[in-house]
This record gives sequence, C-alpha cells and structure tokens, in this order.
Amino acid sequence: MKDFPLSKVYQLLEPGPVVLLTTARRGRANIMTMSWHMMVEFEPPLVACVVSNRDYSFAALRATKQCVLAIPAVELAPKVVGVGNISGRSVDKFARFGLTPAPAESVSAPLVVECFANLECKVSDTRFVDRYGIFILEVLKAWTDPAQRNPKTIHHHGFGRFVIDGEMIKLKSKMR
Amino acid sequence: MKDFPLSKVYQLLEPGPVVLLTTARRGRANIMTMSWHMMVEFEPPLVACVVSNRDYSFAALRATKQCVLAIPAVELAPKVVGVGNISGRSVDKFARFGLTPAPAESVSAPLVVECFANLECKVSDTRFVDRYGIFILEVLKAWTDPAQRNPKTIHHHGFGRFVIDGEMIKLKSKMR
Repeated sequence: MKDFPLSKVYQLLEPGPVVLLTTARRGRANIMTMSWHMMVEFEPPLVACVVSNRDYSFAALRATKQCVLAIPAVELAPKVVGVGNISGRSVDKFARFGLTPAPAESVSAPLVVECFANLECKVSDTRFVDRYGIFILEVLKAWTDPAQRNPKTIHHHGFGRFVIDGEMIKLKSKMR
Repeated sequence: MKDFPLSKVYQLLEPGPVVLLTTARRGRANIMTMSWHMMVEFEPPLVACVVSNRDYSFAALRATKQCVLAIPAVELAPKVVGVGNISGRSVDKFARFGLTPAPAESVSAPLVVECFANLECKVSDTRFVDRYGIFILEVLKAWTDPAQRNPKTIHHHGFGRFVIDGEMIKLKSKMR
C-alpha cells in the first residue's frame, strides 16, 4: 500500500461509499460495515461517523479511541454484506470472510489488505456519542493500493440494495 | 409531488448523493450545494450536515432553524455545479439557474420542483455548530416526484468530478 495525501482524503469519503471500520482491543480485532459517515473538515481530515451502542465495535472504539476506515471496491460486496450481517461478539469476522488484517502505522486497529483505501483514525471528540452515537475521527494516515485502479465503490440503498459507481463526469466546479 | 414515508428517508441520503439545501429568511430564498451529510437516526429521521460559516446560507439556517434538503438527479448536474460555484449573497440563484421554488408544508424554506426528492427539515440541535459547523436536522416531511423514475444521483469526488449512479445490485443483507 502506498501513502495517500491527507489533503485528498475527502475525495474518498465525500461520495458516500459503504466502508468497513476496524477496531482492536485486548488483542482482538473486529470489523463492521458502515454507511453513516461524512466529512467535517478538509485538513487535517475530520470525519464524523455513527456507531450505535448496539454494535459490538462500539465499546472498543470508545475505549481505544482508534480505528481504521477501509474502503472496499465492488468486488468485495458479498464480504462487506457478510460482515454487516453478523456480530463480532461471537465470530472472528476477518477469518470468517477471508479478509486480511495488516498492522497500521499509528493505530492498533488493523488495515484491511483487500480494500483499495485505508484510513488510520483517532477519535478526537466523543461529546456527541451519548446522544447520537456520533464519533469525530481525525485521519492520521492514509493508504491506497496502487494495484486497484479506478475502484468502483458501493452505496447502500437499504435492505441489501447497493448502487455501484457508474460513469464519472467532469464539470467546471469551484467546489473543492 | 407525493408523500414519501419518513421511515424510508435514510434510503435517499445514505448513498451519499450531492444535495441542495434551501433556506428562506426575510422573504428571500437561497440555495446551496452540499455533500457533507450523513444519517444519524432512522425514525424520526435525523440527519447531520456541515454548513460552514463562510456559506451565505449559514446565517439563515442558524436563525430560522429550517431548511429543505432537495436531491437532484444527474440531469440537473450543471445547475447543481452552478449553484455550488456562486454565493447567494449577490445573486438570486433560483432565478439565475432556472430552478423553481415551491412552498413547503411545514417550513418556510422552499422545495425545489426539479428535484426528485425534497425533505423538509428543522434544525433540532445546534450544539456542534460553533466547533464543527455540524447541524442536526430532523426531517419533518418528505416528498418524491413520481414522474422521475429510477433517478440517478451524483457523488462528488472533488474539483468538479462527479460519479453517476451505475447498476444496482441486491445482496442478502440484514442491514436496514
């Protein structure tokens, strides 16, 4: 995996792809599927995401204040759905779904080797967790896989319906 | 436009489309382009979004605590980009870009007739505005245009590059 500039991280998340969130606690890694996230600041990149206290990852995220956001391309969709359908409480989901954890540089949560992008994050604000489950994350380090060219992401429309990225268009925009 | 169930609003926003946000203050309507939003709760639907205090809409949103999130299909992309490139401080963007405001039912901000979905929202929490520009919105009423079938949305990848929705797939998911 190759360094990816922090200033461009928003270009990965702003389109709204389904992502995977990994945590590690007491030597045990876990992974969940998540679609409720948004950019909050360009640089340093801040991301807000919602993790429910019903999710098994919630306690690890809150306690360790570290996670990785990994972005899967469409080829991983069946695994992404599998990860989303089962709790890590009883299962090692990496092993179950054939996803490969790899050590991150600055957090204890693992990267996901099969994903085209991995964002190492620390939780920088927990004040909105009790009320809304909203965690504010700061992206510390970003990686992309140069072998995955023009990856197409998936976007969740509810009940297992996902739209795959189609054509890209370019318009004269001042929008960063 | 037709009633759309509040319980399904997440299916419109969770995929991460570019949206338009309208406000109205002192008899003057405005509209901006926005990509930084996420679902926070299913029902009543809560949405978080980031509106910067550099945006002209910021003051109106904060003061009136009302807005409409309107979701454009790809055919509106040039107008959406136009709206995003200019400030409402000096221009009536509805007139400039040929977008039609229509009265909403429960808020003073206007619906956008050309959009396939319109969500009437009240600002339900402003505690994160000063620090992050994050507004928590509650969707009070949702409309969709039955004449626009299978609308394809656009997703911003930075600097005027937008990915258009492609194929939809269905996988066996327990994910709501």
